[in-house]
Amino acid sequence: MTERVVIIGADATGMAAASQARRLRNAAELEIVVFERGHFTSYSACGIPYWVGGHVDSRDDLIARTPEEHRARDIDLRLRTEVAEIDIDGRRVRARDLETGDESWWDYDKLVFGTGATPIRPPLPGIDAAGVHGVQTLDDGQALIDSLNSIPGRRAVVVGAGYIGVEMAEALINRGYEVTMVTRSPQPMSTLDPDMGELIRKAMEGMGIQVVTDAEVTAIRTGADGRANAVATADAEYPADIVVLGIGVRPATELARAAGLPLGPHDGLLTDLAMRVRGHENIWAGGDCVEVLDLVSGSLRHIPLGTHANKHGQIIGSGVGGDYATFPGVVGTAVSKVCDLEVARTGLLEQDARAVGLQYVTVVIESTSRSGYYPGAAPMAVKMLAERRSGRLLGVQIVGREGAGKRIDVAAVALTARMTVEQMVALDLGYAPPFSPVWDPVLVAARKAVGVVRRDQRTTE
Amino acid sequence: MTERVVIIGADATGMAAASQARRLRNAAELEIVVFERGHFTSYSACGIPYWVGGHVDSRDDLIARTPEEHRARDIDLRLRTEVAEIDIDGRRVRARDLETGDESWWDYDKLVFGTGATPIRPPLPGIDAAGVHGVQTLDDGQALIDSLNSIPGRRAVVVGAGYIGVEMAEALINRGYEVTMVTRSPQPMSTLDPDMGELIRKAMEGMGIQVVTDAEVTAIRTGADGRANAVATADAEYPADIVVLGIGVRPATELARAAGLPLGPHDGLLTDLAMRVRGHENIWAGGDCVEVLDLVSGSLRHIPLGTHANKHGQIIGSGVGGDYATFPGVVGTAVSKVCDLEVARTGLLEQDARAVGLQYVTVVIESTSRSGYYPGAAPMAVKMLAERRSGRLLGVQIVGREGAGKRIDVAAVALTARMTVEQMVALDLGYAPPFSPVWDPVLVAARKAVGVVRRDQRTTE
Repeated sequence: MTERVVIIGADATGMAAASQARRLRNAAELEIVVFERGHFTSYSACGIPYWVGGHVDSRDDLIARTPEEHRARDIDLRLRTEVAEIDIDGRRVRARDLETGDESWWDYDKLVFGTGATPIRPPLPGIDAAGVHGVQTLDDGQALIDSLNSIPGRRAVVVGAGYIGVEMAEALINRGYEVTMVTRSPQPMSTLDPDMGELIRKAMEGMGIQVVTDAEVTAIRTGADGRANAVATADAEYPADIVVLGIGVRPATELARAAGLPLGPHDGLLTDLAMRVRGHENIWAGGDCVEVLDLVSGSLRHIPLGTHANKHGQIIGSGVGGDYATFPGVVGTAVSKVCDLEVARTGLLEQDARAVGLQYVTVVIESTSRSGYYPGAAPMAVKMLAERRSGRLLGVQIVGREGAGKRIDVAAVALTARMTVEQMVALDLGYAPPFSPVWDPVLVAARKAVGVVRRDQRTTE
Repeated sequence: MTERVVIIGADATGMAAASQARRLRNAAELEIVVFERGHFTSYSACGIPYWVGGHVDSRDDLIARTPEEHRARDIDLRLRTEVAEIDIDGRRVRARDLETGDESWWDYDKLVFGTGATPIRPPLPGIDAAGVHGVQTLDDGQALIDSLNSIPGRRAVVVGAGYIGVEMAEALINRGYEVTMVTRSPQPMSTLDPDMGELIRKAMEGMGIQVVTDAEVTAIRTGADGRANAVATADAEYPADIVVLGIGVRPATELARAAGLPLGPHDGLLTDLAMRVRGHENIWAGGDCVEVLDLVSGSLRHIPLGTHANKHGQIIGSGVGGDYATFPGVVGTAVSKVCDLEVARTGLLEQDARAVGLQYVTVVIESTSRSGYYPGAAPMAVKMLAERRSGRLLGVQIVGREGAGKRIDVAAVALTARMTVEQMVALDLGYAPPFSPVWDPVLVAARKAVGVVRRDQRTTE
């Protein structure tokens, strides 16, 4: 008998799940139906800023697999079709064709949520005006590029200073705009501690981006033509020919909430280790619409990142196909390029540690990406948090230039293995002059942290 | 009462030990005497090929701390002075001034071996001729550069194809020489499995280096002026205006052997976890003159690398100064740049695994250093060994271009934590398009290895 899985959303999680399930079960065993609101499948949303900025030539470069490629593998993919309702008890969904308005009910044996996240659009005056753009989907990216190509002005305001905001500010500078970034945070990149975030501010200002912090946007001003022409805060107005919202996203879980499925503190779906929605053996969810366990703090977090979405999809596809895989959780690793800076973090910030009752020591060191005498050696700063008493690694932040960012992975693995900073000092990392000083910067930080942990032990016993 | 520590050798281990001991104990508590045969202290031997190749401007760039800087910290440093004999029972050493020939006995309370390694010079006809150079010390490097600057010819033969041999071949190509590399191994870089080593051969040949493998050198031919003019193997002769020996090194332990100290299977000194010579509570040894525990295979290895030497020195200095630190062992990580290739390894090769009775599966994958659509994405190959049944990671080899080499560190930490390839698939590594595809290449390899381990389990149960 043929089972049917219905998948909601055709991006990373949904299509990775479909592909993996198809690898395990053929069409006679499993019918795979995917509903997708938009026009595209399996694309890299993380690549949109680089497309807008001109580093990536075309939209198609961001698409890993086209609808046709998926359909060729017996996946029944329905674009421009949204799921309007889920009947959990009846095991069926109501789908609506967004072109024709036609609706139909589809029975399912298994259901997968890959609904992703929705950009936060605060209910400000003018927020829906022409010239105000999100950058969450390929459709968003295309609309922004069309807008950039058609408007005459050269002033852009980016609202928000997280990864997307910072990347968009850089993309717009690369396109020749005068860029102002406005954030209510005290610094750009609140994914870093303030001392490290200051390094980002300096780099952005050095690139000519005006960085306005501690500023809450109160309205988007519009002109006589109805287009946005300025961003207003309590204290000032910033003229804008185009406004980009990079405020962040929230899990797209309205459908799940309406169906009575369990949501967590960040409005994301709650799952078990096999990515099944809690309490529902035949429903899975993954990617930007779920909450994940932070293995360092023991808390639930919402971390919209393509790499997690892909892993979740793979695990869900295994489960749907009758195999077994689990997702143990995250340690909170992220890396980004800001102008010529590489910025990375993993584990907890100081505020994260305090919030869960962890006491810690911190160190910040400066080192270089290569041996000091080797051409191209560039400065990098490493901040490290270690638990008091135990010396267990709690988090690392890195700001540097070429060759700095991916060093965060060493800390990510060490966090996963619950290593102490003392254990880290002994790590056998790759050394050669073109790659590292004889003491890798991460080990320099660990060595300093060992000293601080010990001093703390001596002074408080 | 003032104690005295005598340190033999003023490079990485010796001077790191001296510095750390001085940090812990002042001159009234501890007298530190260092004997060094050569003219230099605390230099980067690993940097010599880049100095010869012109990437590093001057010899002084390779010196981390000068004799004067050490002396300013109350370290009694005696250059051009060798230790000729050690009287273990009498706790004293006999030192000889190499300039004057004067000898004197020095009592010690504590003794440190940082004698390093000696380049292997097979007893071939012509091996001591003018124009034949090792590249182990700054003195060697200076002699080679002087020779290169004074000889008229442009043909160089490098004997040996390990890290130093390969780096020297590239350095000489960069100086405009015709370079032939001759090795008795079936491939360059026998620190990699043959399949990965072939990638190096292709890159070297692509750069114009003639690579001669499976060829035992039988003699260095000399001309009427007594200078080397060719390298002979059983089958051929390779004309040479200069010959560089990069055959490898062995622990410099003649002195230790004569004193009756314990040596291991590779003629390196044997130490405990605190780097004390086994059976001797007041004698330490570290760096290129010791053997280290390979945590993956459980065997002793000789791994001459500046990064280990520095760590050992730090640990020894702590012990000498009355503090506590240990060196748990290595996992065998190494990274190198060969032409425009980055080459890295950690853990066991196939032959290493077989030699200690480990059964394994292997996978090789090809991926890219960045998202495929991001500018500069370059291909990289990752080979992974995992233990049969358990799936425990045993080793990783990487050959790629920019951004490939230091990815080995993820595997080095995973090996230290004794992770399985299944645990590795879940690792939360940094992802953003400029840094990695959505599945990091190391995780792609791990994911494939999980599949192979499982298939092996199914077919053999």
